[in-house]
Amino acid sequence: MKPPILYSGLALDRSHRLRRDADLAELVARPTARFAPYWRGRQLLSDTPTAVVWLDRDQIPATIDPGQAPCLLLGEDSEGPLLALDISAVPGGEDGPDLRLGQWVGLRSVGSRLPASDAALLAYARGMLVWRDRTRFCCVCGSAVVIADAGHSARCADPDCAALHFPRTDPAIIMLVTDAEGRALLGRQPAWPPGMYSCLAGFVEPGETLEEAVAREVREEAGIQVISAAYAASQPWPFPSSLMIGFTALAEGGPPTADPHEIEDVRWFRRDQVAAFGEFNAPGPDGLFLPSRDSIARVLIERWLEGVLEKPEPNR
Amino acid sequence: MKPPILYSGLALDRSHRLRRDADLAELVARPTARFAPYWRGRQLLSDTPTAVVWLDRDQIPATIDPGQAPCLLLGEDSEGPLLALDISAVPGGEDGPDLRLGQWVGLRSVGSRLPASDAALLAYARGMLVWRDRTRFCCVCGSAVVIADAGHSARCADPDCAALHFPRTDPAIIMLVTDAEGRALLGRQPAWPPGMYSCLAGFVEPGETLEEAVAREVREEAGIQVISAAYAASQPWPFPSSLMIGFTALAEGGPPTADPHEIEDVRWFRRDQVAAFGEFNAPGPDGLFLPSRDSIARVLIERWLEGVLEKPEPNR
Repeated sequence: MKPPILYSGLALDRSHRLRRDADLAELVARPTARFAPYWRGRQLLSDTPTAVVWLDRDQIPATIDPGQAPCLLLGEDSEGPLLALDISAVPGGEDGPDLRLGQWVGLRSVGSRLPASDAALLAYARGMLVWRDRTRFCCVCGSAVVIADAGHSARCADPDCAALHFPRTDPAIIMLVTDAEGRALLGRQPAWPPGMYSCLAGFVEPGETLEEAVAREVREEAGIQVISAAYAASQPWPFPSSLMIGFTALAEGGPPTADPHEIEDVRWFRRDQVAAFGEFNAPGPDGLFLPSRDSIARVLIERWLEGVLEKPEPNR
Repeated sequence: MKPPILYSGLALDRSHRLRRDADLAELVARPTARFAPYWRGRQLLSDTPTAVVWLDRDQIPATIDPGQAPCLLLGEDSEGPLLALDISAVPGGEDGPDLRLGQWVGLRSVGSRLPASDAALLAYARGMLVWRDRTRFCCVCGSAVVIADAGHSARCADPDCAALHFPRTDPAIIMLVTDAEGRALLGRQPAWPPGMYSCLAGFVEPGETLEEAVAREVREEAGIQVISAAYAASQPWPFPSSLMIGFTALAEGGPPTADPHEIEDVRWFRRDQVAAFGEFNAPGPDGLFLPSRDSIARVLIERWLEGVLEKPEPNR
């Protein structure tokens, strides 16, 4: 499978060399440094074409000192270091601070209109900045942390503790489950817009393989027994810090039972039924529609509709 | 591939129902509750057969109050709830506190002698207790945390923050890389026992797929370009908190260059060379030996030696 997985395809050298050897303050001070700004969950994008806006040092709002604001090295290209810079401290109205360079946009609202590498870059920047924002204190001893490795690690400031903390990525499995009749098991969470049905998913727990997590979640959320599972693809999902690991699974049929604490409804759908699902703005029969095009769930469902999704072997 | 993946195969209902609905203090007080004790990184095992020792309430050392010591619900069986209990506060010499019920053993030193489900259970317990031990304060605001969900989550005690924290699992990729001549790329880290060579590996970063992480790590650690990668299997690895995600990868040949900061040596080995590798206690020619039998690296290498490892498609 060669899925068009959004938020993947970064065309940038992450430069572990610079991360390790260069001082963040020194990187920030380089005249060649460029900054992708981030403001309260949104990123700055140009209009035509829709693309990341890179700020030179003199384009950074005067109230922001990139040596003090949350800032980290994304990587480097032939021109110099590329950094992510959180300027959330700048005041701004509904449209965000006006830098006269573009618009402040939430990544998920624009994802698929971006060049693939820009979408991946913003996903990477968002994931790192959210981690940074939530990693101010040492979870072991409660002391403040000091940022190191050009923004890619945090060290407890108490020398007696000195615990190291690294960006967190939570592995989650997401699965297109089918039965022997070729139907797909789709469900919906209460928080989703009414009518949206998607793949079941959940976080991997300590002490289980990916395949075991797939079987456990399908059993817990739908009361359905998985027979076998096959890996399909993965997707970085920085909302806020997941790695979605997509599987296809073959399951025993029978009526599903939704876990009322997690799932509002779960059903077996025939292929022709799912093919008639619409979009959020144009639902299909009974008001049903597919998840957003930026999600791996959508990719798995579309590949299944096209008949090109990996099939798990029944005897695995 | 059906690899004998150690630390997987838990035969226990994790009971999300109890986790959600029951109070930990109430679970601990049940006369049917049984406890798998943990002491300073080691677990209590019986000798013949080698198996987990479960303590009834009255077998817990008198100085330990399971309502106060780190304790969490692992799951339940037909007899009652099963919990992990950290009794590290009990004094003990080199052999650990003498409970007259078995020996205190590090999981990795015994893993493959345990029944599969016991090894998985101890991996699960270890991963959770290490998380618990390292999650005493809120990383967002520095306040203390309060344990919830029968030990499976931590909530910031400051109501103005109230951040929720969940057990951390770090996804890592580990790959058996081969070239067109069928050689395998194996390397060694400086911290490993001299002579041990194994698969390259590394943590997945924010903003990349598993396949991208495979290619990045092989490029960074060995200067070798990956052409394609295929998922093989995964393994929980609670040392302290990883999920190892195994891949096979096809790469361009050419002389590898070890990243001196991470890798001491990396080489292409022919199959007959790797087949002659020995064990830690009985190395092969030139003193070389394979990684421990409990690791997914060993499984990947043995499957490759047997010719049954998934082959990545050259055009993926």
